Amino acid sequence: MKSIGFFCNWLFALTCILGLLQESIGGRPLARPRPRPDDAAAFARWLVSQSSWGVLKNVVSFSDGLPNKGGGIPYFYLTTLDPTASNALKDQRSSFTLSEYNLGTCGTTDPENPTCAKITLTGKLKALDGNSTEAEVARTALFTKHPEMKGWPKGHNFQIFQLDIRNIFMINWFGGPKPLTVDQYFGGKMQV
Amino acid sequence: MKSIGFFCNWLFALTCILGLLQESIGGRPLARPRPRPDDAAAFARWLVSQSSWGVLKNVVSFSDGLPNKGGGIPYFYLTTLDPTASNALKDQRSSFTLSEYNLGTCGTTDPENPTCAKITLTGKLKALDGNSTEAEVARTALFTKHPEMKGWPKGHNFQIFQLDIRNIFMINWFGGPKPLTVDQYFGGKMQV
Repeated sequence: MKSIGFFCNWLFALTCILGLLQESIGGRPLARPRPRPDDAAAFARWLVSQSSWGVLKNVVSFSDGLPNKGGGIPYFYLTTLDPTASNALKDQRSSFTLSEYNLGTCGTTDPENPTCAKITLTGKLKALDGNSTEAEVARTALFTKHPEMKGWPKGHNFQIFQLDIRNIFMINWFGGPKPLTVDQYFGGKMQV
Repeated sequence: MKSIGFFCNWLFALTCILGLLQESIGGRPLARPRPRPDDAAAFARWLVSQSSWGVLKNVVSFSDGLPNKGGGIPYFYLTTLDPTASNALKDQRSSFTLSEYNLGTCGTTDPENPTCAKITLTGKLKALDGNSTEAEVARTALFTKHPEMKGWPKGHNFQIFQLDIRNIFMINWFGGPKPLTVDQYFGGKMQV
């Protein structure tokens, strides 16, 4: 028990430092309450809003809005030096996958267990006009959740992209994917 | 400070419980030292060996061997009720993506930052003969890292799959993807 106590004390200090740093620097938003799995739209919106990165051919950071004010549209800050962006300029078809495991809300449930949610948003990855109002909104959404992006090299031609969602595949319970239309997704209420 | 203290005490208790549970149940292997980024093969093998899940069209768990004894071949335990497996039986071409961010070794670096490693293994996803020696090795590798798989419903037709790696795309530092052949990957030494 003594060794566990020591382990915990050490872990406690480390976790506090990392926890506090992460809150202020890591760009991971504070957790909102996990919606009931049968409320598919609210659950999907929660999963997207609370996540800070996913897989879009490659691992990329994203934001759908200010922390806990996500609008549901994933925005990305990508350089065309990365194939993810350069390919998108040739073929916009993309799918973006998130795991709830990243949020820490799956506890000790295995990441592949259907009760540990995963969502794949399929659609078209579009570069936004950097001077548009939407680009300004997206830039604020991205730089708020990912502060270090502000300092990324100007010479690397980073551009703001948006995933225009056409289809949603979400598993967050037993019994296969939840039926969820794009309209239902955008109509989903974020729980306070 | 008082509220931070309280927050930390609460976090400390929770982290200990989860931390201890995770070590024994969560199936996430203990961390090995992070190889130097310029040792591409060792780095890639470390990233694969230390990870417990990734994105293969959908979020799936995997294992490349016993903890810290990974052979580099990703094995999966998939049900054909999930499109990931049923599609693979029609078209084996697959890519499997991992982020170092899951390992906690990126600290507060943004997940998209090139120094927080990401790897995509591209190849063919093949179902193994369940009675083969390799399937037995894979089953042990999977069930050791993902103990709850043992109890997954027999009626769901779970099968063991292997990713036959044909190409490797890894970013773990500035300057674009690391040149890394499949032979170099399998020749990479795991650091002790």
